[in-house]
Amino acid sequence: MSFSITILGCSSSIPTNDRNPSGQIINYHDKLYLIDCAEGTQLQLRRYVGRIQRLHAVFISHLHGDHFFGLVGLVSTLHLLGRNKVLHIYGPQGLEEIIRLQLSYTHTELIYELIFHLTNPEVSELIFDEGELQVTTIPLDHRIPTHGFLFREKPGLRKIKKEIVLSEKIPYSEYENLKLGADYITADGTVIPNSSLTVSPPIPRSYAYCSDTRYTESIIPLIKDVDILYHEATFLKELSEQATLKYHSTAEQAAQIALLSGAKKLIIGHYSARYDDLNPLLEEAKSIFPETELAQDGLTMTVRKKLVTE
Amino acid sequence: MSFSITILGCSSSIPTNDRNPSGQIINYHDKLYLIDCAEGTQLQLRRYVGRIQRLHAVFISHLHGDHFFGLVGLVSTLHLLGRNKVLHIYGPQGLEEIIRLQLSYTHTELIYELIFHLTNPEVSELIFDEGELQVTTIPLDHRIPTHGFLFREKPGLRKIKKEIVLSEKIPYSEYENLKLGADYITADGTVIPNSSLTVSPPIPRSYAYCSDTRYTESIIPLIKDVDILYHEATFLKELSEQATLKYHSTAEQAAQIALLSGAKKLIIGHYSARYDDLNPLLEEAKSIFPETELAQDGLTMTVRKKLVTE
Repeated sequence: MSFSITILGCSSSIPTNDRNPSGQIINYHDKLYLIDCAEGTQLQLRRYVGRIQRLHAVFISHLHGDHFFGLVGLVSTLHLLGRNKVLHIYGPQGLEEIIRLQLSYTHTELIYELIFHLTNPEVSELIFDEGELQVTTIPLDHRIPTHGFLFREKPGLRKIKKEIVLSEKIPYSEYENLKLGADYITADGTVIPNSSLTVSPPIPRSYAYCSDTRYTESIIPLIKDVDILYHEATFLKELSEQATLKYHSTAEQAAQIALLSGAKKLIIGHYSARYDDLNPLLEEAKSIFPETELAQDGLTMTVRKKLVTE
Repeated sequence: MSFSITILGCSSSIPTNDRNPSGQIINYHDKLYLIDCAEGTQLQLRRYVGRIQRLHAVFISHLHGDHFFGLVGLVSTLHLLGRNKVLHIYGPQGLEEIIRLQLSYTHTELIYELIFHLTNPEVSELIFDEGELQVTTIPLDHRIPTHGFLFREKPGLRKIKKEIVLSEKIPYSEYENLKLGADYITADGTVIPNSSLTVSPPIPRSYAYCSDTRYTESIIPLIKDVDILYHEATFLKELSEQATLKYHSTAEQAAQIALLSGAKKLIIGHYSARYDDLNPLLEEAKSIFPETELAQDGLTMTVRKKLVTE
């Protein structure tokens, strides 16, 4: 089952020639989930991902323009291209009003259904639960109400070792219990431990998106042991005062959060347009958290399955 | 005095990799005037024109997304880059509400003044008159209220032939009358004709922007003898039914308008995304109006001064 992230934009508020502002695509089981949608995102999506009608849901972290000004254009283009599936949009108060006002003035009666789901940036909430995927919000410390998103697989069921189960003549009606971890007790009272009848499912994978935010350790319990952490790193630490003032983070701070949360990997992004060369940001983060990578427009990362060693 | 047009986007509603939707810059005496502002226009502006704080006024033709979805992002970026000059925006009912609603939700208190001027798409009106430049609206025939814009220099004053005026000892107080075309009558009653004392000013230059519209001859008196006519050509004539249905024009129709209006040059654009190769559109227009050129993102055209031959 695929689980990948494609960066559509890694710039902060001002776009540069190489870097669009925020937008990311999660591809999970061939369904696309868009996180944030800066101006220009629809083009980045077509450029780097394609087949944009596979878009299943959109998640907007907050109402700064570099995170949502492209949404109305994307919604319109999906309409013009003949979309016939519902599109779910998750985001804070005001987003629906902004989009619907523009659709109204443009005289656009969408040929597909748009369903808005209001989020609450004050608390961490499970906002999406479909199939094997759950999305939870991560309250952040930004100038206006803002949350990140944790994409996490649900724990899977244990997998039955067919040969053994058949040879033990365990009835089919017991299979669901075995998958849930139950031992099996034979007619003569013998206990067959679950571990000999099943194997563990892969460890649930997870991806956390934390942009934009000041350094805040309040998010650590929410992103504990995440496979890939995207954390904004707008500035180098030499501009840490500015970072605090503008409710943003430095590369060092992003790395510190990765370290404290036990993340497997860190992706930094949301770079200030002042940085042409991003390597100083990378080096600063790596000095604290070596498993750091730079977000770049078009970069795709896979969250790999890991089996439990038993 | 410079007078040029730079195409920032020549696509119709859906952007392609090579073509952004509508946006054009008029550079007149080193002040920039933006016509329409599709998503992505701010980046095109920086890519092809630069020095975006020289932007003096914005003119929006109608409220279809491919003509204004980029405006809020541009307004925000000018703010982030420290603009301190007023920005005038001319456009139809709804535009101000859309922009101000988004600025409000993004908690943006602009550090410069934004002044909206409401246009009326039903009638041709002089909406801008500053220095030597005037802008008049051109009501178009589109699905929603829409107007184009005619940028036109005011007729200049006649220029005094200094040597002759001095040798005739004409008093300085008469100079303004001479510039306006008056003859000079000497103390002994001799009439010195104005044409021997002054030369004609250059012929006022003009540029007409007509997008989006069905074929309509009602615009011809408004754009009579224009130097450069931009007229949309969304489709080839083989799709003329579709053009009519969607309130757009074919390349042939654009050329017909250029011919009937006595335009010196025609630029076609607003191409449907279905056309990879634009040459058939060009050939179709040229068969009727040879002085046709294709709009392409980044193309700059100069409206040249012409002197009156006397």
